Amino acid sequence: MKKDDTNIDFPLGVGGSSTIAAISTAPGIGGIAVIRISGIDALKNSNAIFKAKNSAINLLNQFANTISYGSIINADNEPIDDVLVSVFKTPHSFTGEDIVEISCHGSVFIQQEILHLLLANGCKLAQPGEFTQRAFLNGKMDLSQAEAVADLIASTSSSSHRMAISQMRGGFSSELQSLRTQLLNFVSLVELELDFTEEDVEFANRSQLMTLAFNIEKVISTLSDTFRVGNALKNGIPVALVGETNVGKSTLLNVLLNEEKAIVSEIHGTTRDTIEDSINIQGIQFRFIDTAGIRDTKDKIESMGIERTYQKIEQASIVLWILDCTQLSEHMEWLTEKISKRSVGKKIILVFNKIDKIAEEEREVLNQLFETFEGERIYISAREKINTDGLQNALVRAAQIPEIQPGDVVVNNIRHFEALKLAHSSICRVIDGLESGITGDFLSQDIRECMHYLGEITGSISNDEILGNIFGKFCIGK
Amino acid sequence: MKKDDTNIDFPLGVGGSSTIAAISTAPGIGGIAVIRISGIDALKNSNAIFKAKNSAINLLNQFANTISYGSIINADNEPIDDVLVSVFKTPHSFTGEDIVEISCHGSVFIQQEILHLLLANGCKLAQPGEFTQRAFLNGKMDLSQAEAVADLIASTSSSSHRMAISQMRGGFSSELQSLRTQLLNFVSLVELELDFTEEDVEFANRSQLMTLAFNIEKVISTLSDTFRVGNALKNGIPVALVGETNVGKSTLLNVLLNEEKAIVSEIHGTTRDTIEDSINIQGIQFRFIDTAGIRDTKDKIESMGIERTYQKIEQASIVLWILDCTQLSEHMEWLTEKISKRSVGKKIILVFNKIDKIAEEEREVLNQLFETFEGERIYISAREKINTDGLQNALVRAAQIPEIQPGDVVVNNIRHFEALKLAHSSICRVIDGLESGITGDFLSQDIRECMHYLGEITGSISNDEILGNIFGKFCIGK
Repeated sequence: MKKDDTNIDFPLGVGGSSTIAAISTAPGIGGIAVIRISGIDALKNSNAIFKAKNSAINLLNQFANTISYGSIINADNEPIDDVLVSVFKTPHSFTGEDIVEISCHGSVFIQQEILHLLLANGCKLAQPGEFTQRAFLNGKMDLSQAEAVADLIASTSSSSHRMAISQMRGGFSSELQSLRTQLLNFVSLVELELDFTEEDVEFANRSQLMTLAFNIEKVISTLSDTFRVGNALKNGIPVALVGETNVGKSTLLNVLLNEEKAIVSEIHGTTRDTIEDSINIQGIQFRFIDTAGIRDTKDKIESMGIERTYQKIEQASIVLWILDCTQLSEHMEWLTEKISKRSVGKKIILVFNKIDKIAEEEREVLNQLFETFEGERIYISAREKINTDGLQNALVRAAQIPEIQPGDVVVNNIRHFEALKLAHSSICRVIDGLESGITGDFLSQDIRECMHYLGEITGSISNDEILGNIFGKFCIGK
Repeated sequence: MKKDDTNIDFPLGVGGSSTIAAISTAPGIGGIAVIRISGIDALKNSNAIFKAKNSAINLLNQFANTISYGSIINADNEPIDDVLVSVFKTPHSFTGEDIVEISCHGSVFIQQEILHLLLANGCKLAQPGEFTQRAFLNGKMDLSQAEAVADLIASTSSSSHRMAISQMRGGFSSELQSLRTQLLNFVSLVELELDFTEEDVEFANRSQLMTLAFNIEKVISTLSDTFRVGNALKNGIPVALVGETNVGKSTLLNVLLNEEKAIVSEIHGTTRDTIEDSINIQGIQFRFIDTAGIRDTKDKIESMGIERTYQKIEQASIVLWILDCTQLSEHMEWLTEKISKRSVGKKIILVFNKIDKIAEEEREVLNQLFETFEGERIYISAREKINTDGLQNALVRAAQIPEIQPGDVVVNNIRHFEALKLAHSSICRVIDGLESGITGDFLSQDIRECMHYLGEITGSISNDEILGNIFGKFCIGK
């Protein structure tokens, strides 16, 4: 059990003799693309295919953090591209190893040719996340920071971005690390007592240990409590759009999406795919669940297909129930019951669409009709874009997400959350044990268990399976 | 008319006070992304949002061709990303201006945030191709080299890549430039004679001029002749797949596409879109024209829709006519006539598919049936992948494309081709004029016309419209 009582120190250059290469920029055609090489032979393998413009230059004798201009040439000395080559040297690089970055013209053909040449000259194709994995293994960052690199790359809103960058820059790692070290000091003393069981000594001050345990319990609880917000921000808040056909559901969704897309496409040719069903409102990502299919005849409503629609409501945190002001359903009572039954514990927003088509007094009638209905009511016209910002504000209110401030520590990783829960149980057992005065061997076991789970978060404790799960989700080239 | 008799020298930093910025890597999520800034304030504007890890570092005092590590921060001092910043200084940069490249994590959100910050700090969003346009205007490359940058980025095969890189590195530019300068010397002498018309002097040696004109005619002819090959290689060779339904057309296309895609996806997640209907065989790009729709009943064949299919044959250089060995059409004679009529001047390859389903002697019968048919015959099974490489070889033979060697000069740009044709007419008039002894003023006019068209290719002669056309086709960020 003493195996995991210190941080595992991985030697620099843990990749051993292998040097990896991958295209690190987004796939496809761009102005430029970057191919990254890391490992013991990064300079040698790159130099083999590089001919500097200034013939006196050789990558092997270039200083760290400098850029050289020249050509990539193939085995027949044929030029493949004119490139810029950046050199970084161990240990002051992202991975901690020697790194070369080749910045080439962004043709897919050229990217592949250069990668082929590197593979032919001794590089291995990098696995997903292998650069970041090496950075972790070489001690450049802990595991939760490495995971934040992937979150940072995937971040689509200011909130998810803030959480990721705060985590990448240390986040709760150093605090957990420090608490774990304090636990280690205590457990060592407790275990020392075990060698002197005959003499009934107490090296570990029980009241200090109690103070530490309470402190740890508080830190863990606080972190765990941030998970609801963190998870919602990371994965988007699920919103079900419910309503009969022709109430203007898709017009509304398009209006919301287009407002965002207009901003996005002003800057960059982002593909429709990535934002198709997601809307970023005031920095919070909302993920829409399609529930198309409610028809206005009772027979059809009762069909299996419609039942599935209602089941989808259960995946949502917020239900947007869209109504056509000009034509309320004949089955309103029945509908209300159905939707309400499925929406227990969820926020429902009643959206009265086509408000421009009715008179002020008709609105009053509507209001009375839904008097007993709990939840917010919003009057809009999707087509005329009346009060759609009011709806956006209502969504943000319903999300109940406090604004993430720069530097806020928020747990948004299910792996961390699970480890925190287990660490919490262990530390509660330590507290109970101290209160009931259990023996040192039981105490030691609970402390070590807590240390284990805290260590899993920062990667002090890790195994190939955990690492495989984490880095397998990265993109290649990072 | 004397305005265009020298190369226009643009001053360095022609962008004037404007500094441009754009995301230069392919759109979307990647491991890393690069944002490029060029112009007089590139360092100042970048430095305003950059905080180096080493607080002693400031981009304004960094040496050229060095890389600094630090963070991008927004106006509230909030960190947006940890980045590497490369500094290049005028005149030794791609554009000839100061350039900063920010290498950030490849999140779309981060890319946009950094670009927003740069725009807020005085940068302008770069237009498509504006970096390369500045390189041209600052005399870092001539116009045909600038155009080759776009070709290089779009290159998808070794042939199109070789043509582009040869052109980007000078290609025929310097030769045309030198011929143009020699013409300029002559025309100056000829025009000098005009000032002495009373005295009947001849400053320009007519026989030397004749030699030069013959030489120019030869160079232009040789270049023009390469256009058929260059254009085919650049845009792909159009191949029409013709055949009745169920002869195995789409199976065949899939087999051909899959063989390539397997290679491609081994290296990179290339999207299906880019290669959907194109096949790169032995370095030559073939572009398939879909002609689905020939049905095996005479009535339907005669329908309007089918007529359109035959019209598509006319766009092709090569016609792949696929037949089902086991079931020849009842309307074979009629079909043969139709297809042959549309294929005049094209290469037709008869592809007998499902060859595994018939006996050797049946193949003989088939052969006799098509005895009078000109063009190659290939026997394959698309499903069993029998002799598909034989078909590939037949396609390459039919393309009649000589292999492009590294450094070969090939014209593949329709703008260059048109200018060469016009320059050719002019130089032929010069030759005729010299032979018939026309007066100096007419001679001068033809020489200047030839110079004009040669100058259009290299960009010595250009105007906003030409530049707009050329650089408008670039991607943003290059």
